[in-house]
Amino acid sequence: MPDIIEGRNPVLEALRSGRPINRIILSENVQRHGVIGDIINLARQNGIPVEYVAEPIIQKNSSSHSNQGILAYAAMKEYISLDDLLSISQKIKEPALYCVLDGIEDPQNLGAILRTADATGFHGIVIRSRRAVGLTPVVAKVSAGAVEYVPVARVVNIAQTLEALKKAGVWTIGIDAAGKQDYKQVDYKLPVAIVIGGEGQGVSDLVKKRCDSLAKIPMKGKISSLNASVAAAVVMYEAYRQRSL
Amino acid sequence: MPDIIEGRNPVLEALRSGRPINRIILSENVQRHGVIGDIINLARQNGIPVEYVAEPIIQKNSSSHSNQGILAYAAMKEYISLDDLLSISQKIKEPALYCVLDGIEDPQNLGAILRTADATGFHGIVIRSRRAVGLTPVVAKVSAGAVEYVPVARVVNIAQTLEALKKAGVWTIGIDAAGKQDYKQVDYKLPVAIVIGGEGQGVSDLVKKRCDSLAKIPMKGKISSLNASVAAAVVMYEAYRQRSL
Repeated sequence: MPDIIEGRNPVLEALRSGRPINRIILSENVQRHGVIGDIINLARQNGIPVEYVAEPIIQKNSSSHSNQGILAYAAMKEYISLDDLLSISQKIKEPALYCVLDGIEDPQNLGAILRTADATGFHGIVIRSRRAVGLTPVVAKVSAGAVEYVPVARVVNIAQTLEALKKAGVWTIGIDAAGKQDYKQVDYKLPVAIVIGGEGQGVSDLVKKRCDSLAKIPMKGKISSLNASVAAAVVMYEAYRQRSL
Repeated sequence: MPDIIEGRNPVLEALRSGRPINRIILSENVQRHGVIGDIINLARQNGIPVEYVAEPIIQKNSSSHSNQGILAYAAMKEYISLDDLLSISQKIKEPALYCVLDGIEDPQNLGAILRTADATGFHGIVIRSRRAVGLTPVVAKVSAGAVEYVPVARVVNIAQTLEALKKAGVWTIGIDAAGKQDYKQVDYKLPVAIVIGGEGQGVSDLVKKRCDSLAKIPMKGKISSLNASVAAAVVMYEAYRQRSL
């Protein structure tokens, strides 16, 4: 979990979302207008100290190299439990709508998926704790702030998690080329969790077996798979479209 | 076109122009600062391997004797012209279907877009030569091979390119949050070029003005934009869906 938030937009989003921030450090070289000006004002309103430091201090404490001269020290954003995730859907009185990631390893992909989840009204994301990327500072930055708004449950075992979801009445749909159904034929107005595989091998066999059904994204070209965050987005936008009707 | 580029400045220019380079070999005797330092940095940024070899190996592979101790092995895949791209659509007897990229800088995004273009039957991609990523080895790798199948035209000026497309009867649709139309309302059975903006600022104002119309991708969350390759994919899959009906 990132306790250091890096870069202008992620810091601004963290402040706007009301996330607890302990302090902000800014490179002396950074111009104090535009987004940075907004950050300074918001920080002042919320009593968060802003310090100006030499550029090398920023670089030394940054892990993403895309810090844009600004770091915010946040209280840790916590992963939530699967039960918490189910409660969120109950509270907002909508059928569950989750995206389960079976081994996404690339922070670019997780960041992009968080961003799409925010845009399409998904209630949350489930990620795997092993051989998968977590909510790192790079992910936070790529997510353009979405990490602050999209609840993320981290689980040890995706197959067991699907069983728990099914018990809670959630349909589990694996997105896989072997699916007989087209992804557009799925009824996303029901409580559903879509399952997206990792970059290398897609949805693992063990997980596929636990899915209620498999759905495929049609492809008419010569390459056999899409980028993982693209596949997730295509399905998430179809779910969003159906729920907006 | 030579497939071996020789000498400091030609190699630097080739890198800057985004020309696909497979690898660079450098004589052990060459000082690694100045132009050579720039070359090494640019190569690293683009994922191009740099190898240090004995001077006679350079001389043996050089044909110009003005190699200055450096050779770059260029990829054989060439960019096509806009006219070639228009001819492709005529040959396959389909209304044009292009994706124009107004300043995509991230190789992950360009690679993912090529992959989606292959999957959705887009006839080709148009990219910008300046401040944009070209067909580098990283892009080729991320594209999972799609770079071999999707024609790419590289142009100096996107605004002028839109004018040329319009003259050829192609509708130009900028994908932008300011669009009044939803992207699903666009008729993709017509000859169309969708225009996707770069990671930072989206479609530039100059380019937006030249578009026949703007269409937006709805977003219901708190973040104001999608990842560029995700935005492209959502629109490309809608075009593919309409053309499959």
